[in-house]
Amino acid sequence: MRFFSDNAAPAHPKVLEAIAAANRIDTAYDGDEWSQRLDGAFSDLFGTGVRAFWVTTGTAANCLALAALCPPYGGILCHKDAHIEVDEAGAPGFFTGGAKLVLLEGGGAKVTPETVAAACDRIRKDVHQVQPAALSITNATEYGLVYQAGEVAALGALAKERGLAFHVDGARLANAIAATGESLADATWRAGVDALSFGFVKNGGLNAECVLLFRTELADEIAVRRKRAGHLLSKGRYLAAQILAMLEDDLWLENARSANAAAQTLAKAAPHRLVYPVEANEIFLNVTAKEAGQLRAQGFDFYDWGPGEIRLVTSWNQHGQDVDRLAAAIALL
Amino acid sequence: MRFFSDNAAPAHPKVLEAIAAANRIDTAYDGDEWSQRLDGAFSDLFGTGVRAFWVTTGTAANCLALAALCPPYGGILCHKDAHIEVDEAGAPGFFTGGAKLVLLEGGGAKVTPETVAAACDRIRKDVHQVQPAALSITNATEYGLVYQAGEVAALGALAKERGLAFHVDGARLANAIAATGESLADATWRAGVDALSFGFVKNGGLNAECVLLFRTELADEIAVRRKRAGHLLSKGRYLAAQILAMLEDDLWLENARSANAAAQTLAKAAPHRLVYPVEANEIFLNVTAKEAGQLRAQGFDFYDWGPGEIRLVTSWNQHGQDVDRLAAAIALL
Amino acid sequence: MRFFSDNAAPAHPKVLEAIAAANRIDTAYDGDEWSQRLDGAFSDLFGTGVRAFWVTTGTAANCLALAALCPPYGGILCHKDAHIEVDEAGAPGFFTGGAKLVLLEGGGAKVTPETVAAACDRIRKDVHQVQPAALSITNATEYGLVYQAGEVAALGALAKERGLAFHVDGARLANAIAATGESLADATWRAGVDALSFGFVKNGGLNAECVLLFRTELADEIAVRRKRAGHLLSKGRYLAAQILAMLEDDLWLENARSANAAAQTLAKAAPHRLVYPVEANEIFLNVTAKEAGQLRAQGFDFYDWGPGEIRLVTSWNQHGQDVDRLAAAIALL
Amino acid sequence: MRFFSDNAAPAHPKVLEAIAAANRIDTAYDGDEWSQRLDGAFSDLFGTGVRAFWVTTGTAANCLALAALCPPYGGILCHKDAHIEVDEAGAPGFFTGGAKLVLLEGGGAKVTPETVAAACDRIRKDVHQVQPAALSITNATEYGLVYQAGEVAALGALAKERGLAFHVDGARLANAIAATGESLADATWRAGVDALSFGFVKNGGLNAECVLLFRTELADEIAVRRKRAGHLLSKGRYLAAQILAMLEDDLWLENARSANAAAQTLAKAAPHRLVYPVEANEIFLNVTAKEAGQLRAQGFDFYDWGPGEIRLVTSWNQHGQDVDRLAAAIALL
Repeated sequence: MRFFSDNAAPAHPKVLEAIAAANRIDTAYDGDEWSQRLDGAFSDLFGTGVRAFWVTTGTAANCLALAALCPPYGGILCHKDAHIEVDEAGAPGFFTGGAKLVLLEGGGAKVTPETVAAACDRIRKDVHQVQPAALSITNATEYGLVYQAGEVAALGALAKERGLAFHVDGARLANAIAATGESLADATWRAGVDALSFGFVKNGGLNAECVLLFRTELADEIAVRRKRAGHLLSKGRYLAAQILAMLEDDLWLENARSANAAAQTLAKAAPHRLVYPVEANEIFLNVTAKEAGQLRAQGFDFYDWGPGEIRLVTSWNQHGQDVDRLAAAIALL
Repeated sequence: MRFFSDNAAPAHPKVLEAIAAANRIDTAYDGDEWSQRLDGAFSDLFGTGVRAFWVTTGTAANCLALAALCPPYGGILCHKDAHIEVDEAGAPGFFTGGAKLVLLEGGGAKVTPETVAAACDRIRKDVHQVQPAALSITNATEYGLVYQAGEVAALGALAKERGLAFHVDGARLANAIAATGESLADATWRAGVDALSFGFVKNGGLNAECVLLFRTELADEIAVRRKRAGHLLSKGRYLAAQILAMLEDDLWLENARSANAAAQTLAKAAPHRLVYPVEANEIFLNVTAKEAGQLRAQGFDFYDWGPGEIRLVTSWNQHGQDVDRLAAAIALL
Repeated sequence: MRFFSDNAAPAHPKVLEAIAAANRIDTAYDGDEWSQRLDGAFSDLFGTGVRAFWVTTGTAANCLALAALCPPYGGILCHKDAHIEVDEAGAPGFFTGGAKLVLLEGGGAKVTPETVAAACDRIRKDVHQVQPAALSITNATEYGLVYQAGEVAALGALAKERGLAFHVDGARLANAIAATGESLADATWRAGVDALSFGFVKNGGLNAECVLLFRTELADEIAVRRKRAGHLLSKGRYLAAQILAMLEDDLWLENARSANAAAQTLAKAAPHRLVYPVEANEIFLNVTAKEAGQLRAQGFDFYDWGPGEIRLVTSWNQHGQDVDRLAAAIALL
Repeated sequence: MRFFSDNAAPAHPKVLEAIAAANRIDTAYDGDEWSQRLDGAFSDLFGTGVRAFWVTTGTAANCLALAALCPPYGGILCHKDAHIEVDEAGAPGFFTGGAKLVLLEGGGAKVTPETVAAACDRIRKDVHQVQPAALSITNATEYGLVYQAGEVAALGALAKERGLAFHVDGARLANAIAATGESLADATWRAGVDALSFGFVKNGGLNAECVLLFRTELADEIAVRRKRAGHLLSKGRYLAAQILAMLEDDLWLENARSANAAAQTLAKAAPHRLVYPVEANEIFLNVTAKEAGQLRAQGFDFYDWGPGEIRLVTSWNQHGQDVDRLAAAIALL
């Protein structure tokens, strides 16, 4: 019973069906009918005109967006535990042509207007220091915390004031929205977000993620950058079809709710052990090495997250039975 | 009836089946059982120890390989009609950090030892001129011509003599091998090839291509570069499974033979119209705009390829009936 | 007696004097009084508001300008014999982050509106092909030919029409202006030029060149890129002082006239041997290897320029006596 | 009386004389007689075979060296206050093609084996995290502290053990050597240093710095990278001549001793105000804004360095009288 990561879960059957249904000849790259429907589908979903670009990884989504939002000589403000800083092998530097990540502190990998403003203020306004050009946050964060729409809006207002473009890494945006019950629009463009990496792979997709541009004038540049980075698949219809399947009947939201619910079950098993509040589908627990061993002995797999800490991640398809068993096992530690 | 490009064809049923069979939880990225079997499968196929890395596009495969073979300040010799020069949006410059493509002339997009040697000789050996570091050829070429193993070996020998790394863009290597009947080993590493982009998408795959390293010491670098370029998919098993399905029972070869056979049928319909000999699965024909219109009026789609020329590409699944119809239509022009 | 290149000539005494006069403490980088006077001095000289940035090499001047004018994914149209293509070690690719040089044909390294338009027209308007974003010409050209202001203006008009930024490599602009007698304004910004590399080193400077921006809104970006490329010297006053010395009493023009006059003396010695008309300070002669040997035996040094051709370059300080001797020697061949 | 920075001081008269003496025609770039003598002069000075490359800025020296020592996908360990992190506008990212600076803590901008080891240990050994490839320290540090040869050697040993290349930013290495009295050899290559940026501009030079390679096999790459970055000046002899003048009769050491002595005079004026021990030529003092105003009112200029702190830097040519005056003024605060 694996609680390693939602990014190893299987694809939802409807996603597989959509791929099978797309298995015919069509126009190559993104000229096919599925790809052509993406802009409209997302514009409907977000309630504003957006441009949508499928890619196959969150790293590609994040870094294509950042490359369009930040010049090579600019700085990107992000949390020191942000995925773009910690887990993308320096991809932001590669895609942007050398932009610098300026790291922010903050509990649970959350960024606040105060930390952003302070970081900007520390930078001398001259050519010797890299000037900040963009802000990137992750929602839900790498520690499973969620930004309320109001929090995003406060960051968006500050970004605007400081002349920063605003990017959201939404690898688990679905989980965040499922948690807050707020609208996608409020959590993104109405809050001043310029570009969003909307994740599907961790949420039942097979290998399709999406870059969404609320600043649609960047679309031509993103299109070129996607091709130039080797991310324009010739049979793009199989990606677009996955995404459309995830959007249909709000499957993305249903899956996220399911994963979040499983996380709540686990969180309730040992509230005193929680390192962070459980808001989305990640649970960080204070667990000794010995206790971790006991869990593993019962067939549960997960990451050790530093000494005395473990990370559990629940997926869209986590069997209720497995979750209940793990909850019980944790409660008994 | 579309003869635009093999890169728009559907995926082979066995490929879809393999994806479905991989639809369970496993280790993320390339830690899954399918990905772990790739090195062995290709080593068996090529008869030597190779390292294999799935990616989703030929551009990614080509440019990751080139980035490992050529420093940012080096030159890559290739044909002026090579895909890396003409159709990859400058991706080689992006992946390598600015390496220069040094363009060669030659009929049918073929490169010869003579053109390579002459290009090298034209470059002054000083720091003012970009020094050549790698040679890249496409087999089958962008005009459907095929390199015999002996031709590759002659280029390989020259590359070695001149200190050039040697890359093959094998987006249609299957078609080339199907055409010559020679072995993969003879056409690649025995001929001095260092790295190969082995294409599957044009040949029945869904979205999996493969970088093969015969210089296995480059594997760690390629692994990092793949991640850094956003090409390390978290559910890599769906790519590895596709490739393994293509290798099983030589499906790759069977599909290529089928596409090549269709091309031969078309070639024989109008031998006097052929711009190039038809060796793989591309047919370039001298056809007037009026004649092209007549073909289109009968339901055939294809590219115009400059004035008075059209390009037809046959796919692994091209219905025999469609091909026969097109052959007949061409013969009647 | 060296006729290799004007870039090896000594610095003019007034340039050395200016350096000595700047040898006191002042504000670092470009905050000193000399650097602060540059914008004004050049604005006066060109009759329009310009922003001026000293650098130490023509390569830096060219490539900083190009990096501001062309995105990493764009193309720069230039002659196939342009310095940026042939003699800058791929620096344009480095500074721009991978932009592609799109090469044009044309006698004497001259670019025409026709070749530019044709090159643009050959490029498909899609994401697969690198789209042209800038045009760069060299005036005087690498073969010593000069663009009349009207020729520059025709290129500028086309550039505007095609949406191309327009850069002039003016390593020998002084020689071009000395040749045509036209104004700097007519040869540059009135003709649609956006950025100019104004050369001084080949014309009596010690190690100061200048980037001039007619599109002054690019100044902030150039300032940052200069620093980031290691080209913001801490004691910049020694560069600014050189340039101001070159501008004073039109020393730049006087020096260029002197070099051009020497070139005319040589050109008249053997008009039938000229490969190109001699318009600035470079002379290309049809001379056999045996004849070249005879000249060298008399103490004249120069480049062989391909078989049966030599290149002579005259400098601002070339002794009249040496020039007369060489002219006589050539006439006697 | 300016105590802002040694990088704004005038050039030493012998440096100017050397420039004047080089003011004749010679071979361009680094083919002249002065440039040709550099390798030998430095090899003698360091007591081992080195390769020397003049450049015009410390940023260029540092970043060319780092580009040769660290791949684009690698990490460079350095102090969080290092010049390469704080004051080079992201140049390391530009020159290396996106390498990441991994920041270390430590008083006085000093790096210890412990902080380096800990930073390495925090990085997971997988493709998701940037793996460290190089270590860079500054000697003397940005806060005027000096590494003893033994300290450098301890870092060098650790670097070797961890597979890290080792670079020293020696913008003020002369001051460090003047302070310790140790040999250049012991402080660099014998301590495991691979490449050194040897600064002259802050120490009486006009605009010449030097990259020294103890791993001489990197010389060809550095030569190309220097050209490609626009740092190969055509009249390089004026740089080489400056450096040779600085080496003659140990002018570099004499100048540094002079600056250090001035710093000691200031340090002794108010030992209780020192933020760091004064070991080279920088003095950081606890001084209130009011007190700073009093100093400025007496004609002393310097940087405010955060609230309640000022920075004084002494130069090779600081008049003894000015130093004594400032010392007295500080003592009287």
